[in-house]
Amino acid sequence: MEFYQKEIILPVFTRGYHLITDVLKNTIINELRGIKVGQFQAFLKHTSASLTINENADPTVRLDFETHIDKMIPENMPYYQHNYEGADDMPEHIKSSMLGCQVIIPITKGELNLGVWQGIYLGEHRDYGGERKIVITIMGVKY
Amino acid sequence: MEFYQKEIILPVFTRGYHLITDVLKNTIINELRGIKVGQFQAFLKHTSASLTINENADPTVRLDFETHIDKMIPENMPYYQHNYEGADDMPEHIKSSMLGCQVIIPITKGELNLGVWQGIYLGEHRDYGGERKIVITIMGVKY
Amino acid sequence: MEFYQKEIILPVFTRGYHLITDVLKNTIINELRGIKVGQFQAFLKHTSASLTINENADPTVRLDFETHIDKMIPENMPYYQHNYEGADDMPEHIKSSMLGCQVIIPITKGELNLGVWQGIYLGEHRDYGGERKIVITIMGVKY
Repeated sequence: MEFYQKEIILPVFTRGYHLITDVLKNTIINELRGIKVGQFQAFLKHTSASLTINENADPTVRLDFETHIDKMIPENMPYYQHNYEGADDMPEHIKSSMLGCQVIIPITKGELNLGVWQGIYLGEHRDYGGERKIVITIMGVKY
Repeated sequence: MEFYQKEIILPVFTRGYHLITDVLKNTIINELRGIKVGQFQAFLKHTSASLTINENADPTVRLDFETHIDKMIPENMPYYQHNYEGADDMPEHIKSSMLGCQVIIPITKGELNLGVWQGIYLGEHRDYGGERKIVITIMGVKY
Repeated sequence: MEFYQKEIILPVFTRGYHLITDVLKNTIINELRGIKVGQFQAFLKHTSASLTINENADPTVRLDFETHIDKMIPENMPYYQHNYEGADDMPEHIKSSMLGCQVIIPITKGELNLGVWQGIYLGEHRDYGGERKIVITIMGVKY
């Protein structure tokens, strides 16, 4: 039974949804390759962005995510009290909890056992979010 | 410390929410029975369906899930760009990320340690979703 | 590799969102301190409340959560069939699945490796929810 952990800093992303599967995987690729069966966790240390799993091919999915989720959780609702940092302040927090701040993926034979169409999205919910920290933990049985 | 993993294919379900606790549990029942304390993960390898935990008794909960979540994430929004596979194409992806594609449940004395009223739902968000693959992983300390 | 598990009962909370990071952590603080690298899970055994991670400082975030999520998932929709226990009955179930019934956090050097602004919220979605049971599981490598 092995346990590895690494904290990384993502480059700055624009507001919206971004595929980061390879960025995360490459961070810990050597340790991952050695795991026969296990679990991978990526945990985002922020409350104004999110991690989720969705379609890894067509960029219009990510555009429609931004458009529709902005309708579900809009800016400038008259009842928001928490808007010190701008119109995106309160919606970003609700989006983060609705989508979640982490992904947990089974490891099988040294690979993330994702479906053919699955990838990891960073949801950047701030207009200017800055750098984002992620803790990657993998555990499992070695070959 | 033990690690078991199995990939299964669910039978085809109709659009809506379906209780699949026993289907998942029975897949790995012998290994589960041997774990004193641990963790169970079911991971769905699709971006147009979901796994979540909710009420395991009254089927009207599952019907109301379908009705209300279809209001929150409707079909045919004029701004959807990703609708190549029909009106259910984009909503299915958003539902999958909002509800999640996995459940992780503590194992205690050889059982899934769920609350009395908790069960595992498959959310089938496509009109014709077909077969769905799930990776089940359990880990923990044996008796 | 160590595995600890404990089931606790939370005190009764009013409807809304409540910071419970310290309550959960203190339950298992001695075992946590001994883990060099690992994982912490808190699993809520109910379908009418939720656990999520969000901003740990300003209480207006928690107030705006209640206000806006009540708009997304309102009471008294004419199409709800599941309302035997009152107007909060069906919305509470949908909220629980949208926010999730658990949090999983990496452990690093005997601490929950949360971001500076992250805390654990209990979402109490019932008007009178009563006591809530949580299973806490930690696993990892000891010092």
